[in-house]
Amino acid sequence: MSSLVRNASLLLAAAALPLGAARADEGMWTFDAFPAAKMKSEYGWAPDQAWLDRARMAAVRLTGGCSASFVSASGLILTNQHCVAECLSDLSTPGNDLLAKGFVAAVRAEEKQCPGQQAEIVTSIKDASAQVKSAIGTASGEAAVKARTAAIATIEKAACPDTATTRCQVVTLYGGGQYKLYTYRKYSDVRIVWAPEDAASKFGGDPDNYNFPRYALDGSFLRAYENGRPVATPQHLKWTGREPVEGEPVFVVGNPGSTQRMLTMSQFAYQREVNLPVTQATQSELRGRLIEAIGDDPERKREGTDTLYGIENNLKRTIGRVRALNDPAFYAGLAAREADLKAKVAGNPAIGNPWAEVDKAMTALRAIDAERRFSQPDGELVGYALTLVRAAQERAKPDADRLPGYSDSALPLLQKQMLDLKPISGWLEELTMRWSLSKAREYLGADHSQTKLLLGRESPEDLAKRLVSGTKLADPAIRKALWDGGQAAVAASTDPMIVYARAIEANDRRLQKIYDEQVEGPLSAARSKLADARFAAYGDSVYPDATFSLRITYGKVGGWMENGTKVAHRTTWSGAFDRATGAEPFALASAILASKSKLNLNGAMDMAYATDTIGGNSGSPVIDRNLNVIGANFDRNIHGLRNDYAYDMTMARSIGVTTAALEQALRTVYPAPALLRELYAK
Amino acid sequence: MSSLVRNASLLLAAAALPLGAARADEGMWTFDAFPAAKMKSEYGWAPDQAWLDRARMAAVRLTGGCSASFVSASGLILTNQHCVAECLSDLSTPGNDLLAKGFVAAVRAEEKQCPGQQAEIVTSIKDASAQVKSAIGTASGEAAVKARTAAIATIEKAACPDTATTRCQVVTLYGGGQYKLYTYRKYSDVRIVWAPEDAASKFGGDPDNYNFPRYALDGSFLRAYENGRPVATPQHLKWTGREPVEGEPVFVVGNPGSTQRMLTMSQFAYQREVNLPVTQATQSELRGRLIEAIGDDPERKREGTDTLYGIENNLKRTIGRVRALNDPAFYAGLAAREADLKAKVAGNPAIGNPWAEVDKAMTALRAIDAERRFSQPDGELVGYALTLVRAAQERAKPDADRLPGYSDSALPLLQKQMLDLKPISGWLEELTMRWSLSKAREYLGADHSQTKLLLGRESPEDLAKRLVSGTKLADPAIRKALWDGGQAAVAASTDPMIVYARAIEANDRRLQKIYDEQVEGPLSAARSKLADARFAAYGDSVYPDATFSLRITYGKVGGWMENGTKVAHRTTWSGAFDRATGAEPFALASAILASKSKLNLNGAMDMAYATDTIGGNSGSPVIDRNLNVIGANFDRNIHGLRNDYAYDMTMARSIGVTTAALEQALRTVYPAPALLRELYAK
Repeated sequence: MSSLVRNASLLLAAAALPLGAARADEGMWTFDAFPAAKMKSEYGWAPDQAWLDRARMAAVRLTGGCSASFVSASGLILTNQHCVAECLSDLSTPGNDLLAKGFVAAVRAEEKQCPGQQAEIVTSIKDASAQVKSAIGTASGEAAVKARTAAIATIEKAACPDTATTRCQVVTLYGGGQYKLYTYRKYSDVRIVWAPEDAASKFGGDPDNYNFPRYALDGSFLRAYENGRPVATPQHLKWTGREPVEGEPVFVVGNPGSTQRMLTMSQFAYQREVNLPVTQATQSELRGRLIEAIGDDPERKREGTDTLYGIENNLKRTIGRVRALNDPAFYAGLAAREADLKAKVAGNPAIGNPWAEVDKAMTALRAIDAERRFSQPDGELVGYALTLVRAAQERAKPDADRLPGYSDSALPLLQKQMLDLKPISGWLEELTMRWSLSKAREYLGADHSQTKLLLGRESPEDLAKRLVSGTKLADPAIRKALWDGGQAAVAASTDPMIVYARAIEANDRRLQKIYDEQVEGPLSAARSKLADARFAAYGDSVYPDATFSLRITYGKVGGWMENGTKVAHRTTWSGAFDRATGAEPFALASAILASKSKLNLNGAMDMAYATDTIGGNSGSPVIDRNLNVIGANFDRNIHGLRNDYAYDMTMARSIGVTTAALEQALRTVYPAPALLRELYAK
Repeated sequence: MSSLVRNASLLLAAAALPLGAARADEGMWTFDAFPAAKMKSEYGWAPDQAWLDRARMAAVRLTGGCSASFVSASGLILTNQHCVAECLSDLSTPGNDLLAKGFVAAVRAEEKQCPGQQAEIVTSIKDASAQVKSAIGTASGEAAVKARTAAIATIEKAACPDTATTRCQVVTLYGGGQYKLYTYRKYSDVRIVWAPEDAASKFGGDPDNYNFPRYALDGSFLRAYENGRPVATPQHLKWTGREPVEGEPVFVVGNPGSTQRMLTMSQFAYQREVNLPVTQATQSELRGRLIEAIGDDPERKREGTDTLYGIENNLKRTIGRVRALNDPAFYAGLAAREADLKAKVAGNPAIGNPWAEVDKAMTALRAIDAERRFSQPDGELVGYALTLVRAAQERAKPDADRLPGYSDSALPLLQKQMLDLKPISGWLEELTMRWSLSKAREYLGADHSQTKLLLGRESPEDLAKRLVSGTKLADPAIRKALWDGGQAAVAASTDPMIVYARAIEANDRRLQKIYDEQVEGPLSAARSKLADARFAAYGDSVYPDATFSLRITYGKVGGWMENGTKVAHRTTWSGAFDRATGAEPFALASAILASKSKLNLNGAMDMAYATDTIGGNSGSPVIDRNLNVIGANFDRNIHGLRNDYAYDMTMARSIGVTTAALEQALRTVYPAPALLRELYAK
């Protein structure tokens, strides 16, 4: 509901197209299509089905947008600290800033539930292509989108009658070339166990983000609970505190969020010319606003730091994408990729000219782009209000008629996210609302009908203040009453945020309808043909774009050559002490400073490895061939910022915190003897 | 010295190339090359030399970056309110915010001097091309730049022995195709006479900026003084409060700042791919920081509003340029323009291939772009310090050996700008410094040697705080002592800002040397050949890019067709009342609200006319054929944002406040009877 999530979903909608022939070690593979033969020919070894099943069953998707893995038999989950930062922020209180202090549960009773968090494990993958495609049939435009949505809702509902412990999700692959039914075992009670403070886990801050050498202790532990007790997870990965070895093969298993490798050139042009420049300008302004609003205020720092971190992280990625698409050689490479595919399927009547259909859809998208982007203000509270208004309307309809996200299969997670207790910061809500409203006016113009709908005769500042100070939606009990009360309760509400959401919601539906008819419908049909074209041209060496669904990628531990100098494959604790200046964000955590004499300073901190990853892979286990976990993936190097569009294994590297570093931290810096015993329990 | 000025000078350095054949009414013409025959053939009339001389002598350049005109015999100057906003801000005191209240001097004794402001009138224009070009001779690279700089300093010094009342400036036209010696009568005591408050002059604020219909009362009056008395200006324009007439020809006389119409495609590519995206991101962040730092604090509003306005104005222009260059059709038009010129001079051995030389220079520029952009922090105080350090070094050298800007002919204005009393806001200085330092680290990387030079082991926040709180340079007496004391005083200073400036200054020189050798030197030679190419291809229909030197442009009063609807040529007071919502920036000034019953509501407020203008033309008189001033130019419409690259008279319009509106304001809203008598004095 925040701007970040909304932008992410826009990207997901725009992404998901098939890819050309994968080069060595390239590819975010689904578990039912791992290229074992290819890997075996390159490495002399490849995992068998038992290995893959074990890795899949140990892999955890965190619904907050991260990946993770089970690392003990009692539901213990390894992920990144930055993946639990929102939880730490939510659990903080005035004077008790867990991002600044870190968190260690000495005993299980001290483990605390993370609001909105859910852990999910893939238990089966089944093809559902025929069912979805036959439901779409010859429909086009909005009708095709509706038919697809209805078919997916029906399949998901039928496959998961038990919504308390399972979740079913039809995953769209190759932009509609394939539909796969993923069934998940889900755990909706996830608790924080252990996490270092920001000064350790985000050492180097934004300046070091997407860079390597790196010295961030970006690891943490969660635990899955059910019925108040830790979950039994015998399928866990084996823990090892050993050092990574240069050249050894590793696997990263997780949920890459979105890539755009197989967009057509008119889609890249839309991103370069329209979408990314606006994102860059507006998010940069938001960043600046938030930095100054936080200032030196410790309470605002506690409440706003995680949000700022998210904005800066996304912005750096956006800037990297702008640079990639503005690099003439890189852009020419994308054009050459498209030209190769066109040449290979030229004259194939089954393919036709899907590129022209995409061009037309992009023209339509450009025409409604600003309206779509600025159709509603950003903020948690206004997000709650809009979801309550929409959910009430949608839930009154038959399952198959609802908008995506409101089907019976999707409602349990939505309800949890809506009703979990989460602290709301009024100043942050106001800031986000007034910023987004002023950007709507700027990009639409003061005289646009949508600007008038959003603002009336109020200023962005006054409107945001009136709505945020007047609403009671920060109280989960109020939200629950409106959720349970449905349409009647929503219609009767005089809460100013609900009143506002009722007023602007129809315009959003209107825009979605235009989008489905003119953009998503035609794009969906074109993508399906483009998928056919790729399979025809490149066979099964084609992997799908990332969709925040489970994937496996492999490569070797190692650095790269940067301007003639070799970057080593790992960093050490010693390097962290060398890099520390004492000034934020290069001030080492006091716990680390105090532990210096007890640490093995030559032990590994972070490592680099040549695997094909992207955002969403944060927290993914880095696994060796023996199913030992040797690290938790948390970033890419600067060259990896181009992974959105293409993977260059000569330069792009994934970055992970080593289990060796986490083990020293558990032993010495933030002692957690019980946790260590659990990790090594037989 | 602020970021805005630095960016403007970068643009100026990059601009100034010759143009293809001007279409009807296109062109920012110099006064010694007005296309009278062309205008006569289109309009049946054109100004004669006497008319042009009178207009030139009435035209005022304000060194703050604006244009203006004499409108009485006693040195009264008409310009925009936004051109005196910095003066109003500088003259404000706690509890007395002149931007919020406006300013009316009831008698001359109440007129107050504007810090740093100087008025300049062109008294002669002479060709200096032969002298400069022969000095350059066959030199190349840095040597050519030095030879040019020395020749210009020598010419300027010889032509203006009296630096108290005259200023000489060699203006580079066609990027080096021509050099012209402009002699100015200068008045360095300029006082504020009358100005409405922001609520009137900036009604509509940033949302309405670069838009029309518009309702801004963006006018003001200054007065030039000498020896404590108003200057006699018998050559003034005649004032009239009459309404503008649709279709009547008008002239805009002023100093357009910079256009980039005749860059080569590799220069446009550099702007689109490298320069503008970084400007957009970094200035957007600065905007956001400043908005939140000001917040609701009335004192910060008083101190920071004018700075914010400048940032937002430049940012909107940057965003417009990004859009223009990212518009495939527009970009193709630029390419076609270049292709036409290349075809017309193909095979001409005197031209050769200057495009290839520019390409090479752009490759060199891309390599040092981030270092150049982030070579020093932004801020008034650090700007003072760097100028003091550099001026001390340069003034110890012979005139011809100095850097541009430090020649004897340039020193008087620099000294005035350095030593005039100007209020400094510590919070704003700190904000600007910490922002620019953090951007330097972001774009160069934490490990870059220049980042280490700029930051040492401090954070941007700590360093900015230490330097701003420790320096005494806000005191003009301290600056004067360092200026007068020269190298010895600067070397002995323990002022932390001076110490800092001493430490970083050499790196700036190093970068300038590389730039001159690899970029400016080769570009200068290439531009001269490109100018020759254009004259060979298009004859004297070629006008030079804007360089903040005096120009004249003409066209007709009138609106345009927007999506099939005609936009009228003028707005009215009545329209302003209709547009007002009561919420900023659409809250009408209370003085206007109180005057409603006494105003002629159907009288003109602002007007649109098809003349070729750009930033720097703010405050320019809009003159009818009888040398009456009927308005003060203050903006362009949204289509005019493309004027940087090309002028499209079907859509682009200039925007001015009418003298009719100002006269109603003087009569009714902010009564100034003495001023009205002066305007109408025979």
